[in-house]
Amino acid sequence: MSKAAPFVEKHSATLDKAMDAAFARGYWSQYPEQASGKVYGETAKADGEAAFKAAMNTPFALDVPGASGTVGAEHSPFGFNLGITYPKTTIDGALAAAEAARKGWRQASALERAAVCIEILDRINKRSFEMAFAVMHTTGQAFMMAFQAGGPHAQDRGLEAVTYAYLAQKQAPADEVIWEKPQGKNPPIVMKKRFHIAPRGISVMVGCATFPTWNGYPGMFASLATGNPVIVKPHPNAILPLALSVKIAREVLTEAGFDPNLVILAADDSNAPITKDLCQRPEVKIIDFTGSSAFGNWLEDNCRQAQVYTEKAGVNFVIIESTDDFKGMIRNLAFTLSLYTGQMCTTTQNIFIPKNGIDTDQGPKTFAEVSQALADGVSKFLSDPERAVEVLGAVGSPATLERLASAPKSGDVVLESQALQHPYLGNAVVRTPAIVKLDKSMEKVYCEECFGPVSYVIPVDDGTDAIETAKRTVMQHGAITAGLYSTKPEVIEAATEACIDAQVALSINLTGAVFVNQTAAFSDFHATGGNPAANASLTDYAFVANRFRIVGVRM
Amino acid sequence: MSKAAPFVEKHSATLDKAMDAAFARGYWSQYPEQASGKVYGETAKADGEAAFKAAMNTPFALDVPGASGTVGAEHSPFGFNLGITYPKTTIDGALAAAEAARKGWRQASALERAAVCIEILDRINKRSFEMAFAVMHTTGQAFMMAFQAGGPHAQDRGLEAVTYAYLAQKQAPADEVIWEKPQGKNPPIVMKKRFHIAPRGISVMVGCATFPTWNGYPGMFASLATGNPVIVKPHPNAILPLALSVKIAREVLTEAGFDPNLVILAADDSNAPITKDLCQRPEVKIIDFTGSSAFGNWLEDNCRQAQVYTEKAGVNFVIIESTDDFKGMIRNLAFTLSLYTGQMCTTTQNIFIPKNGIDTDQGPKTFAEVSQALADGVSKFLSDPERAVEVLGAVGSPATLERLASAPKSGDVVLESQALQHPYLGNAVVRTPAIVKLDKSMEKVYCEECFGPVSYVIPVDDGTDAIETAKRTVMQHGAITAGLYSTKPEVIEAATEACIDAQVALSINLTGAVFVNQTAAFSDFHATGGNPAANASLTDYAFVANRFRIVGVRM
Repeated sequence: MSKAAPFVEKHSATLDKAMDAAFARGYWSQYPEQASGKVYGETAKADGEAAFKAAMNTPFALDVPGASGTVGAEHSPFGFNLGITYPKTTIDGALAAAEAARKGWRQASALERAAVCIEILDRINKRSFEMAFAVMHTTGQAFMMAFQAGGPHAQDRGLEAVTYAYLAQKQAPADEVIWEKPQGKNPPIVMKKRFHIAPRGISVMVGCATFPTWNGYPGMFASLATGNPVIVKPHPNAILPLALSVKIAREVLTEAGFDPNLVILAADDSNAPITKDLCQRPEVKIIDFTGSSAFGNWLEDNCRQAQVYTEKAGVNFVIIESTDDFKGMIRNLAFTLSLYTGQMCTTTQNIFIPKNGIDTDQGPKTFAEVSQALADGVSKFLSDPERAVEVLGAVGSPATLERLASAPKSGDVVLESQALQHPYLGNAVVRTPAIVKLDKSMEKVYCEECFGPVSYVIPVDDGTDAIETAKRTVMQHGAITAGLYSTKPEVIEAATEACIDAQVALSINLTGAVFVNQTAAFSDFHATGGNPAANASLTDYAFVANRFRIVGVRM
Repeated sequence: MSKAAPFVEKHSATLDKAMDAAFARGYWSQYPEQASGKVYGETAKADGEAAFKAAMNTPFALDVPGASGTVGAEHSPFGFNLGITYPKTTIDGALAAAEAARKGWRQASALERAAVCIEILDRINKRSFEMAFAVMHTTGQAFMMAFQAGGPHAQDRGLEAVTYAYLAQKQAPADEVIWEKPQGKNPPIVMKKRFHIAPRGISVMVGCATFPTWNGYPGMFASLATGNPVIVKPHPNAILPLALSVKIAREVLTEAGFDPNLVILAADDSNAPITKDLCQRPEVKIIDFTGSSAFGNWLEDNCRQAQVYTEKAGVNFVIIESTDDFKGMIRNLAFTLSLYTGQMCTTTQNIFIPKNGIDTDQGPKTFAEVSQALADGVSKFLSDPERAVEVLGAVGSPATLERLASAPKSGDVVLESQALQHPYLGNAVVRTPAIVKLDKSMEKVYCEECFGPVSYVIPVDDGTDAIETAKRTVMQHGAITAGLYSTKPEVIEAATEACIDAQVALSINLTGAVFVNQTAAFSDFHATGGNPAANASLTDYAFVANRFRIVGVRM
């Protein structure tokens, strides 16, 4: 019996459920999002915090093939240095070790690979509290968000990638096939055929600073489950969450009888980045990236030897055409604009509102009234600093603070950003969102992503103009999310058509506890891959089917 | 009831069978390959020939939007001009018409699109004899091959593409989904979700001169079935088979209530080619191409706005390491080298044989004996000109004749090419294959595709050297087919591993009625997409999954 067999036995039922869920696209989650002692064990939170604190100011114990020296200068947006160092990768060392690990993993069955990947995710899940602190203090997410988005939600996204990878490999039979062609009265022609999954080669996952696990796991597990070694290149300020993930993956791979160098950490620092050199190496056949459009486009243009999957910048929009729940709409949008201080690739930036105002359940509202209600909604929602910081988290990047500082100059300020004092983490960099009114002619401003807590209210002629303008901005500049508030079926229909053409997911009339900037694994696709904001979707067949090839052998 | 509904009713069972066949990969064919009156009707052959003759020397009646003037200068390799003219496309006219046709087709269901595509294929099938003459007299294939490869086999490949396109679209539910997230004691959060198939946009299929339908249908039907309009750009010397296909497609689309401009013929002539200008237009989002590496690579590099699927040149190989059926092996290879005068992208070019000879059921054979047996096998197989021309067909391109003429200069001639007189088509250009012995050091010669009836016998140290050399040539220069003759399990194992690494399909010990250069739809994948000979495979999920995106709409 292979060492992977126990994992196959343990996880086959989960894989079956996950496949059903992927096709059904109703609600399904494998990993509980409740940051609760009842689910994760009474001491889980204390243990996780202790583990995080113990990791601080020490070298991170991880085997990195060909490493030389150390790197690591992570700084918590909540106001302190992590002081953790990591072995410093050498590109040659990492590639040679990944290459050497390749064959055994390729020869495992698709089911064995899936089961090993699920075991990795399960063990990561058990350490969700430790991961929460790691994500919180590298990304600036508030604790609850760091727990959910960095823990179970990311794990669900990883499982989703494993599921699609397995489904795609199942397209060809795993066992030998007898091909028997009838020949009339003569005996048939008979051949034996085998269809081998031939993984592409070495895969590089380039992590981002804001959602290292949520955005990182899909590419990482899609490549691993389809048989490719993965080199994990974290953002220099968000190494710890991926280092933890890599460490767990290597432990499970070893237990399952595979070479741990199938997953290698390639940490660098911002002064000596290795990503370009690494990604241009001919051995690298797959690249997953989340980050800026400039670098994503560079990878697409310059790493032609590889399949490159990118999620880049975009200009997400919401159209407010009319509503039968003005209060609910404002409450919903206030949360969307505030969550993680707008540092999500899914946060709304451009809010199109008819210049002559809208119809609501509270009677007609002028453009100015809607804008002001939004501003008041955000202010009210964030009026209690103790609660506010648990939504806002902290701001990670000085560049975000610079954009926030210069945003008011581009138009009329509707809501000014404020610095908040964190109640118990005194050095945390906490800001509230800004809302700026822009003229529709100022496309130069609102057609560029202003990453961070800045949104624009933009007067348009009417719903039709809003839809046309929004569609054009998405087709030219990309978007991952789109929202619409309207009570009119014909407006909903037109917006739906426009979003299908512009290939952006649309959320309509969200007034409750679901937000335009949140998606659920196994139900919502994250990005479509059909506009400039991303060339791939998390997760569909297109995301997995080209990570391997099928080699037929007949005799 | 929609006008497409009857086709759904008519073809759903076929689609179900095709999906089962795609997963099973045993033998399955929808379209009978017997060029027989019992299958296609007693007068089918005569009717087909009459239809072909009636088409000659007349303008081809086809509606081409925005056409201006005519083109057409097809010449039969069997020695006469077809004299058919076609409406000449304008790029703007074709793109505008395709764009206008887009929406209605997008709004059809995936099942409706599949059913309409199958109806198109069924009607093409009914005209397989007419198609056979059209293929024969544009490509130079002998009649039986033109019938099978240009008719039912191509139709099966088209159906395979429709099947995978449908499977890929089925990944998301066609109907509305209710997403219901439990909230403990509180009522669940409920959302309604729809997942829209959002086709990429306008698709261009660039046809080739040798297999206009067999190589053309997969891309054409994969794009059409996933909701994209298709502009069909035939090779200037092989317009008729695709013009017939387009005409039938337009008739069926019209009957089914869709815009016929979903399939547009874009014929040009070699003096004023339109392919580059057409393929670089921003409206073009998908390109399928079969042909030279130079042009395929140009498309990949210069049409970055589109998904580009290419099948290009390669250096197919066979390794003769040992055999227990020397006679069967020679007979099999003689057919492979002769079929369609080597003008197949799957024909073997490089034959690696140990320099110290091989073990066979007839005792040991020296390198020279094996080479000579091959030469004798080909000569014997083609000794009766009347039968020979029915295998060889005719040579279509002057460039192929030039390569054939200069091939002997590169090494030692083992078998000289001969010009044969066609028994009843006096002007046909008929040649027999040449075999040339090359030193292993002459990589410059054998690592370049010499398209046409030229193969090389190359002495190597032993089986291991053969496998290593062959693997290197494939990884660097590509290949669509690979063959091995060996009685030794360890050699078979090593060659299998090498072919998985080099991502090329392998045929082992073919001595009967299956040939390395032939593949069967619904069983063999044609090309893997994993080496320089092709970036895609006919047909797998990767070939279809990126021709559309999924747009989620939730409320």
